[in-house]
Amino acid sequence: MSKKELALGIDIGGTTTTFGFVDHDGNIIVESQFLTHAEDHVTTYLPRLYDAIDELMTQLEEDTSVVGIGIGAPNANYFRGTVENPPNLKWGGVINLVELMEKKYKIPAVITNDANAAALGELKFGAARNMKNFILITLGTGLGSGIVVNGDIVYGHSGFAGEMGHLIVNPEGRICGDGRRGCLEAYVSVTGIRRTVSKLLADYLVSSELREVSQAELTGERITQAALKGDKIALEAFEYTGQILGQKLADTVLITSPEAIILFGGLANAKDLIFEPTLRHMEHTLFGPFKGTVKLMMSELQSQNAAVLGASGLIWHELDKRAKSGEQV
Amino acid sequence: MSKKELALGIDIGGTTTTFGFVDHDGNIIVESQFLTHAEDHVTTYLPRLYDAIDELMTQLEEDTSVVGIGIGAPNANYFRGTVENPPNLKWGGVINLVELMEKKYKIPAVITNDANAAALGELKFGAARNMKNFILITLGTGLGSGIVVNGDIVYGHSGFAGEMGHLIVNPEGRICGDGRRGCLEAYVSVTGIRRTVSKLLADYLVSSELREVSQAELTGERITQAALKGDKIALEAFEYTGQILGQKLADTVLITSPEAIILFGGLANAKDLIFEPTLRHMEHTLFGPFKGTVKLMMSELQSQNAAVLGASGLIWHELDKRAKSGEQV
Repeated sequence: MSKKELALGIDIGGTTTTFGFVDHDGNIIVESQFLTHAEDHVTTYLPRLYDAIDELMTQLEEDTSVVGIGIGAPNANYFRGTVENPPNLKWGGVINLVELMEKKYKIPAVITNDANAAALGELKFGAARNMKNFILITLGTGLGSGIVVNGDIVYGHSGFAGEMGHLIVNPEGRICGDGRRGCLEAYVSVTGIRRTVSKLLADYLVSSELREVSQAELTGERITQAALKGDKIALEAFEYTGQILGQKLADTVLITSPEAIILFGGLANAKDLIFEPTLRHMEHTLFGPFKGTVKLMMSELQSQNAAVLGASGLIWHELDKRAKSGEQV
Repeated sequence: MSKKELALGIDIGGTTTTFGFVDHDGNIIVESQFLTHAEDHVTTYLPRLYDAIDELMTQLEEDTSVVGIGIGAPNANYFRGTVENPPNLKWGGVINLVELMEKKYKIPAVITNDANAAALGELKFGAARNMKNFILITLGTGLGSGIVVNGDIVYGHSGFAGEMGHLIVNPEGRICGDGRRGCLEAYVSVTGIRRTVSKLLADYLVSSELREVSQAELTGERITQAALKGDKIALEAFEYTGQILGQKLADTVLITSPEAIILFGGLANAKDLIFEPTLRHMEHTLFGPFKGTVKLMMSELQSQNAAVLGASGLIWHELDKRAKSGEQV
């Protein structure tokens, strides 16, 4: 009998690197993590990564075979196999991680950003199984997106397609992390709703427990808890966030007409508080022929496993594609 | 020797139906047209269409073979093969034109809207030859768009993807033909720039030859002529139109990251008057990684042939796809 095939999924975050071996059905066989130490040069980081992988590999049973490596990383370019000057990793310039990993492990490797990897995780193992057209949106510190059209991630000509966090809500709006004004993620993300709370506390006099919390201490969970207790500022912050997200989703639906939009991460965990206003405003804004055609769904990947499932989904998807097109892998 | 293969391309407009036989290289062998008579029921229209096709077919040489039919029509659904309640054709409900044509002529037929057909015309025979990712925008009475990702039109889950004319510029903006407010085509189209001229004539006192023309008489050409003579209102109307188009294109680039955006139709013929401000505002608005990655191009299809080339491009593209995937046609 042939060996059981596994993929290695690696998610490189600014704080933590998480990695694990995953089978074709999305079962994580073993998983581990270590601190990324974002200030390290890549020549210091890589030996630590290799050692950690080698150590975890000793836990695999003998009748298994690792057939590919999927990597989720910031500023990753799928076409070039590179990580390119991410602001939150001091690796030094443009690093061809795919080439390095393929040389080291002699198996195919693929890289993309974490939102695209999450979308492929949903496609392979989560809420988007059997879908051909959907959008995955991560609502964390920022807003990331992975867009699937005709069963594949849209990379576009540049390799960087699917950056909905930088859609312009208002050209004279809030300053964004990239220096521009009015980007969607300056409104719709954990950071964004925190800024919205500050604005509402400035604009209104209604009493709110959030007046007792500094902006720096304000988490998505804290705002959610206040909203669940009926705090008017917290409720209005979710309404405003859902309005802006819903309106921009309505624009995006005109472009790719997805079957579903899947929300993942920090803010998505507020469930109905964010889903209800988002869906209402999206439907209200949608152009007639698209009304009622799009499901708004919760991610079906467990938060703690999503990064590794996404990265392994990326390589499983790639291997499936190559097998289908008859390409040698 | 095998017979020379031809496709039949049919473009059904509210005023005119244009059709012709086109070879695989985009040469129109013969072409004809007749008045659509939009007020006719489809049961009256179809016999006229069949007669016109049959008559034109007698002009084909004997060593030719017609292998497929491509149809561009309003409110067409590629998946269902239907024309669905177009506001400008009184055909009566949902008509499965693909089924009717395949039954009549015993060859494969495909249908889509005119902007998607135009995009496939550019892909097969025009400015987008060899491109995998681009957007075609038609600037006529309204604004239509066809979006190509990974070498194929994006139809999306609903079959209606690529409706950029209804992107929202401003939720409190101009009333659009569909009753909503602030749609892109209420600003960026021949109709849109005409409305912009009226607004500028209201807002400013500067002298302008356009004060002598009624809104109903104001054509894209008339505004272009005035702008070329330095008329300040006409120039400002192009600047404003380019600003709004450029800003919305910058949003769209974040979604699909095209190699090029191709402009076609009435307003596009104003050339630099519309291209220069559009490109300038798009580049100004674009998120950093996308700056300089997108070409803004003029359509390479001649206006008078574009409709038939687009419709035949649709069926040639479909036949190529089916041959590639090994499907029986």
